[in-house]
Formats: sequence, C-alpha cells, structure tokens
Amino acid sequence: MALIDLGNDLPGIRGLMAYSPDTAAPLNELAELLLHSQDNSLSRGERELIATYVSSLNDCFFCAQVHGAMAQHYLQCSMEAIDAVKLDPASAGISPKLQSLLAIAASVQQGGKAVTATQVDNAKQLGATDKEIHDTVLIAAAFCMFNRYVDGLHTWAPQDRQLYIQRASMRAAEGYAASSPHR
Amino acid sequence: MALIDLGNDLPGIRGLMAYSPDTAAPLNELAELLLHSQDNSLSRGERELIATYVSSLNDCFFCAQVHGAMAQHYLQCSMEAIDAVKLDPASAGISPKLQSLLAIAASVQQGGKAVTATQVDNAKQLGATDKEIHDTVLIAAAFCMFNRYVDGLHTWAPQDRQLYIQRASMRAAEGYAASSPHR
Repeated sequence: MALIDLGNDLPGIRGLMAYSPDTAAPLNELAELLLHSQDNSLSRGERELIATYVSSLNDCFFCAQVHGAMAQHYLQCSMEAIDAVKLDPASAGISPKLQSLLAIAASVQQGGKAVTATQVDNAKQLGATDKEIHDTVLIAAAFCMFNRYVDGLHTWAPQDRQLYIQRASMRAAEGYAASSPHR
Repeated sequence: MALIDLGNDLPGIRGLMAYSPDTAAPLNELAELLLHSQDNSLSRGERELIATYVSSLNDCFFCAQVHGAMAQHYLQCSMEAIDAVKLDPASAGISPKLQSLLAIAASVQQGGKAVTATQVDNAKQLGATDKEIHDTVLIAAAFCMFNRYVDGLHTWAPQDRQLYIQRASMRAAEGYAASSPHR
C-alpha cells in the first residue's frame, strides 16, 4: 500500500499521476519525447530497452515490467530476450553500439560522475551520434527519477508479468503524452 | 568540456537545454511546478532546500549552487546556513518537520526502496501532509535526474559561488517555465 493516501487504487506511476495530474503532464511529455517520438535515430525498441535496463538496475519492478513489455513489443522478441539484456547486455546478442549505450546508462544509474570519456569515445567509435549519447544519458537519468518516484512512495504493482505484455500494444499505439492516469 | 558537442558554451543544464530544446520544455515545466509554483504549502525556500540537499548528496556542484543560491534568496539566510543544511540537517537549526522531509529526500537519493514507512510516519507526526511528502519524494527523484543529466555529460560549471547568488533574484522573479537556455 502506498505511504500516502492516493485516493485511487491504480498501480505504479499511474496511481501517482492520478493523485498529482499537474506534475503528471510534464512527466508524460518527457516520456513521450524520449521513448515514443519518431524523430530519433534510436528505435523505439532500443530506447525502451535503455529504460528497462536502468529500471532493472534500480530494482523497480513496475517500470522494468512496463518498459520491458514495450521493448518486447517493438523488438518483436521474447520475454527471455529482454531478461537476458537485463542480466548481461554483453552476452544478450544485441549490437555492439547498443551495448556501449547500455554501458553509459549503467554508469548514469550509479551517478552522473560515473560516466567516463572512454565509455563515450567507445560508443562514438561504434557509431553512436552525439544525439544518441545525449538521449541515452537523459533516458537513464529520467528513469532514475521515475523509479524513485514509483518505489519511494511504495506504490503497488501487479505481479503477473503477462499483464504488462498484454497492455503494451495499446500503450505503443497511444504513446505517453496522451496517457490519462484514469485509464 | 562536455562529452558531446553542445554547440554552445553555456554551463550546466543550460548548455544541455540549448542543445535539446524539445526535452528542455517538460524539464523546465517540471521544475516550475515543483519549485516555483505558489500553490504549495511548502515554501519556495523549503522546496529549493530539498533540491539543494539532494544535489549536494549527488555531488552535483552546478545544481547544488544554483538551488542553494535560490534557497538562500527565498529564506534570506547566509551561504553558511545553506552549507550547514547540506552538511547535517539535524544540527542546522531548521524545523523538525523540514528535517523529517530531508530525511525522506536522503533516502530517495539512495534509491526508492530506501524510503521507510517509519520515516513517512515521522514526517506526518511532525505535521507534514500527504501532498508535502509526495512533493518531497518527487523533488528528490527529479534532482536524481537533473544531477545525472548535468554530470553524466560532463558539463562545466562556474566555480565562483557568488555568481550563482548574484543570479538568484532574477531566477526567482522569472521562474523556471520561462527559462530560455539562450539567456
């Protein structure tokens, strides 16, 4: 049960957004720009995978499931393939470039100062653009916020992972900016 | 020097926002709602102090200086008084209620799951409302994002602390939503 009275029984960030619709608006807009916008050379699946990986490192079950299901939807892969990335990106069969971006994301999760010039040089050598590196850092940083918001207030999360997967195609069609916490 | 070519020489998050104005918009809107909105029972000074404390715990010099100067401006106190809070809120002469909120913020900085029901019960007993606890958690979480964004891309920051203090009254008058990264 959440640590404050949210006045609703919605899970995860949805309960928080229904409680505080004013702050929900820029949070949803940020998620839309970072994860759902088409104007990005990183695919939606790649960006959702960065969000999933950071949420997993932060041990945030709700966000890891929501965004893992989104990544699975866009990448048309299995839940096991997503779990393999969470466990060890280096052996999960993803591209070297995406591995290098996930290494940067893992450093951001530890703290901003943990990101090294060597990590960024490596990503650039593997083909990552400045914009892709910028977006990787901001996605990772944003999920260090979302994860803490969700878990810091002890929101509840459905434990059945299939529920998140069933919901992913609707979320993909609607995006985040349109998100209504009441839906 | 920043790890990517920002195309400008603005410091801290201002350089990032000029580089990426699309994402700057919801980030500024979030800061405006959390820190500058008048519709809040926590004063602007108290909210800026939460942001300052978390930025200090995250060792983010730029954010700690910007928001420390804002807190100093609103609370009409000395730089030494702000530094005392960063060092040890329990002995800094602030109210027990604000101390209890800073304790929650410190847990959020560690990770969402670090916040305990006992901490929140304590804050409630000292007069904190659900909304104030919600806002404390979201401010702390948001600065875990802002700090990582600023330091993860190795932006530069002026080292003269007086520069931040000189700028604070203008920032206070303008708020964050109006922020132009080019100014």
